[in-house]
Amino acid sequence: MGFNMRERIRAAGHDVVGFDRDPDVTDAASLAEMVERLAAPRLVWIMVPAGDPTRRTVAELGELLSAGDLVIDGGNSRFTDDTHNAELLAGRKIGYLDCGVSGGVWGRENGYALMVGGAADDVERAMPVFDALRPEGPREEGFAHAGAVGAGHYAKMIHNGIEYGLMQAYAEGFELLEAADVIKDVPAVIKAWQRGTVVRSWLLDLLVRALDHDPELDDLRGYVDDSGEGRWTVEEAINLAVPAPVISAALFSRFRSRQDDSPAMRAVASLRNQFGGHAVHQAGPTSGSGSTQG
Amino acid sequence: MGFNMRERIRAAGHDVVGFDRDPDVTDAASLAEMVERLAAPRLVWIMVPAGDPTRRTVAELGELLSAGDLVIDGGNSRFTDDTHNAELLAGRKIGYLDCGVSGGVWGRENGYALMVGGAADDVERAMPVFDALRPEGPREEGFAHAGAVGAGHYAKMIHNGIEYGLMQAYAEGFELLEAADVIKDVPAVIKAWQRGTVVRSWLLDLLVRALDHDPELDDLRGYVDDSGEGRWTVEEAINLAVPAPVISAALFSRFRSRQDDSPAMRAVASLRNQFGGHAVHQAGPTSGSGSTQG
Amino acid sequence: MGFNMRERIRAAGHDVVGFDRDPDVTDAASLAEMVERLAAPRLVWIMVPAGDPTRRTVAELGELLSAGDLVIDGGNSRFTDDTHNAELLAGRKIGYLDCGVSGGVWGRENGYALMVGGAADDVERAMPVFDALRPEGPREEGFAHAGAVGAGHYAKMIHNGIEYGLMQAYAEGFELLEAADVIKDVPAVIKAWQRGTVVRSWLLDLLVRALDHDPELDDLRGYVDDSGEGRWTVEEAINLAVPAPVISAALFSRFRSRQDDSPAMRAVASLRNQFGGHAVHQAGPTSGSGSTQG
Amino acid sequence: MGFNMRERIRAAGHDVVGFDRDPDVTDAASLAEMVERLAAPRLVWIMVPAGDPTRRTVAELGELLSAGDLVIDGGNSRFTDDTHNAELLAGRKIGYLDCGVSGGVWGRENGYALMVGGAADDVERAMPVFDALRPEGPREEGFAHAGAVGAGHYAKMIHNGIEYGLMQAYAEGFELLEAADVIKDVPAVIKAWQRGTVVRSWLLDLLVRALDHDPELDDLRGYVDDSGEGRWTVEEAINLAVPAPVISAALFSRFRSRQDDSPAMRAVASLRNQFGGHAVHQAGPTSGSGSTQG
Repeated sequence: MGFNMRERIRAAGHDVVGFDRDPDVTDAASLAEMVERLAAPRLVWIMVPAGDPTRRTVAELGELLSAGDLVIDGGNSRFTDDTHNAELLAGRKIGYLDCGVSGGVWGRENGYALMVGGAADDVERAMPVFDALRPEGPREEGFAHAGAVGAGHYAKMIHNGIEYGLMQAYAEGFELLEAADVIKDVPAVIKAWQRGTVVRSWLLDLLVRALDHDPELDDLRGYVDDSGEGRWTVEEAINLAVPAPVISAALFSRFRSRQDDSPAMRAVASLRNQFGGHAVHQAGPTSGSGSTQG
Repeated sequence: MGFNMRERIRAAGHDVVGFDRDPDVTDAASLAEMVERLAAPRLVWIMVPAGDPTRRTVAELGELLSAGDLVIDGGNSRFTDDTHNAELLAGRKIGYLDCGVSGGVWGRENGYALMVGGAADDVERAMPVFDALRPEGPREEGFAHAGAVGAGHYAKMIHNGIEYGLMQAYAEGFELLEAADVIKDVPAVIKAWQRGTVVRSWLLDLLVRALDHDPELDDLRGYVDDSGEGRWTVEEAINLAVPAPVISAALFSRFRSRQDDSPAMRAVASLRNQFGGHAVHQAGPTSGSGSTQG
Repeated sequence: MGFNMRERIRAAGHDVVGFDRDPDVTDAASLAEMVERLAAPRLVWIMVPAGDPTRRTVAELGELLSAGDLVIDGGNSRFTDDTHNAELLAGRKIGYLDCGVSGGVWGRENGYALMVGGAADDVERAMPVFDALRPEGPREEGFAHAGAVGAGHYAKMIHNGIEYGLMQAYAEGFELLEAADVIKDVPAVIKAWQRGTVVRSWLLDLLVRALDHDPELDDLRGYVDDSGEGRWTVEEAINLAVPAPVISAALFSRFRSRQDDSPAMRAVASLRNQFGGHAVHQAGPTSGSGSTQG
Repeated sequence: MGFNMRERIRAAGHDVVGFDRDPDVTDAASLAEMVERLAAPRLVWIMVPAGDPTRRTVAELGELLSAGDLVIDGGNSRFTDDTHNAELLAGRKIGYLDCGVSGGVWGRENGYALMVGGAADDVERAMPVFDALRPEGPREEGFAHAGAVGAGHYAKMIHNGIEYGLMQAYAEGFELLEAADVIKDVPAVIKAWQRGTVVRSWLLDLLVRALDHDPELDDLRGYVDDSGEGRWTVEEAINLAVPAPVISAALFSRFRSRQDDSPAMRAVASLRNQFGGHAVHQAGPTSGSGSTQG
């Protein structure tokens, strides 16, 4: 993603020196060399995995950069990390912005939506880069200064939580269409939702695209990973005492998708067997008999 | 279950003539013979599967019985069937009660809890049988006249809906204990909840019993059937616009437990692959690479 | 909506005779006059409330129309009604199509997405009207022949079920943004999601529009009606044993939104008070003290 | 609760010196005096609010106690606090056990169920106190050594998570009984579940008790606090990737119960108004008209 973003910024006429551990794509041999090759005041965009890698990179940059430089964390960091990063750099008079980025593999072509947290003057200084990265069209439709440090990653976290709910809603609808005898052409129905309907969206377009390649989506398994923001969203809902039944249901459906067998449902099966003599499915194959209630 | 109930009523000193299609357990060769061998006014207890079998039996009894007789449907009929059954019999001056029965395979020994719908004088007439069937102790702790025709099965339906929620709650707790490294002895923890805790219950006792035989519950699979009342409960919640997040979550967990692979989660996996280049698990084996968000 | 559709069909160059009970908008004084003024073979589009009004209109048209005519139910009928309607008309050699329509108040301008169930030759005959109603662009992106009779309303029902889930996902995200201290400008964040993000959609555009008028959405109350399709979707999920945790959570959230006080939560409050001495909020005002667990 | 536990331990014949900030119930004027008045090796039971108060008390005891003493945290601490507490005391050769306690206001009479984490020899040393506190009956039905340090509080946390689910299940059932016209006597139905049913439990007995005092539970409001363990349980489900749809639904229902109006449902209402012209309820009073879909 960092690679694509560099290309987009360069295409807008800016000089960019990139550092990546992969020698095939990097412009500089080290973070230090990268810093050296940039004229002050520098603007450094971090795009590495959330957590330790980002924290380590911020710390290293704190050693290398000078007062007046500006660091932007454009990765998927948890918003609670940003305060710490900002304070660390502030001690050396280095500015800090956090920037949530949405756009995935399509961003190089379509532009990246940006949600930014930090001080207004830092945001102002970085605006040429933000303008290079964001989609065509009115700035405010693909860019927001959401608040102080942390607000950008917070906004991106919520964006992703919503995304979980949206995908699960389409997914349940897909399964209900698949399961109905009366529907003869599921992909045609979903394709017909692309114009004029209430449910039209970019995700719907992608679903149509996926169905074009695989009309019953049976080339793949219903196994879904998660990369953290959905969990953080639900944890934040808990912290704030905000009901989040849909986002949490979407998250738990992912967890369930990764289980071959459910320990919880083994407990339910064993209880039904205990009180009702209900048949259980043995751990090997087979089934049983019986049943009265439950 | 009908067999066990007959035995319990007989043990209380009542004459019972049972009819069952199984010649090994029946007392009469046909429903007609059964009716013939009973002196009027008769009390006939129906204990057959819900739906058509019960409706057919009620219709047949309508032909065979006389004015002043009383029919009790003790099966798991949907409460909406009761009005029809009662009207059919009322046309012939035959009384009708619906009776929800809880107790499962333990009822013969412990007694059956009874929830009854119908006219007060019909309930009064049948009370000796209800008293024979219900558990020891104060009548009102194992028997209720819940309302007019349908109320008994309605109450039983809700009882079962609650049961779904209770079982799922214990089941989630079981899985959370199993998943935690810090817990060394899951069965010991659950056994220790039997006295003094807020969560003690008969279902908990049954879970302890199941764990005594199979401490990790891995002799069986997490595959859970449902026999209708949970579905009806959620449908009734929808009819009445009553939020039922827990009972419905328990029901959907059962549905999910019976799927080898989830079509919905295939849709989510395909969407993540489309927008983020996230790896998918192929329908055969394997996994992939990549990932940026979601 | 019927009015807007008439205008759109007329604008495409078709003759339309509309009947409405409102004398200000109707073209004919009665359904009979409307039929009389149309040359056979006629195509009659029904756009009246689901349930009895639609069933009565179909029955009346069965009396008025001739063999070879074609009726299209474009209302929000439950798909299970369609078979009955089709059979009634088939007895008189009148064709029947069911057509789910999406587009709301925006349809006159944007066109209406159409999901149709019925026989292929009936669909073919009605295609000029469908083409007049559907949005600009490739036909298959705003029109689908989904299957046999019932398939159109089934597809529309699922469309609406998905819509419930999508709206609830955005809504939870909105509340989580509102609740966070770090976010200073909620409308700006949501507006910035319109381009380049994974969550961009027409519903998101509408949310932006709503926030333009009322940045905290506090001119209205969080009271949400439902018009049936969401309930039917969850009932169908139950019929088909398809897990639908997100769509049902969205439905239940609407039910809850219409309650001033929750009887269920009164039960939970009373239980906590019983076992833990936890304070309860009296039905009038005030609160209390205490607490140990739960 | 500490007071009641002191009485129960004394009643078993042990010497207890209690310290409480309330001069009316304390035995010692300070923690230091309390320690001084106990002969080594001492066993000190902490029963103060979770979080800072407990952590401070552990730290203070670390200063006051001697090698060979043993501290038991019997409060509702989060299990993740225990490792830190144990390490702090281990540095001074003081033992540490964490003990989850269930029983509420009924514990003094019925005994307290105990779930303990820590080293086996520390558990052994404290067993006379555990035996004094736990309910009558076999030790393993009211006491468990669940695992290493933290296991006791973990087990208690899960106990409480289950409790949330159980209460919500009964509560939904209560509301469904209340809402049904056919049920004439809700308290009678629930009372009748006390014997012989699958749903009988101590919580059910408490619900009967509450209904005896207030048959429609309308002396109180449906406002439900939470004291942390439910949140921690869902957070732990997220950490462990365990689906917990029921426990989370119960938690979110509590959050919702504390909102006068739902920001999320304002967003849904505004969306429906945008696309369908659906009436909204104004923030003051009133309603509106209109509607076509959704």
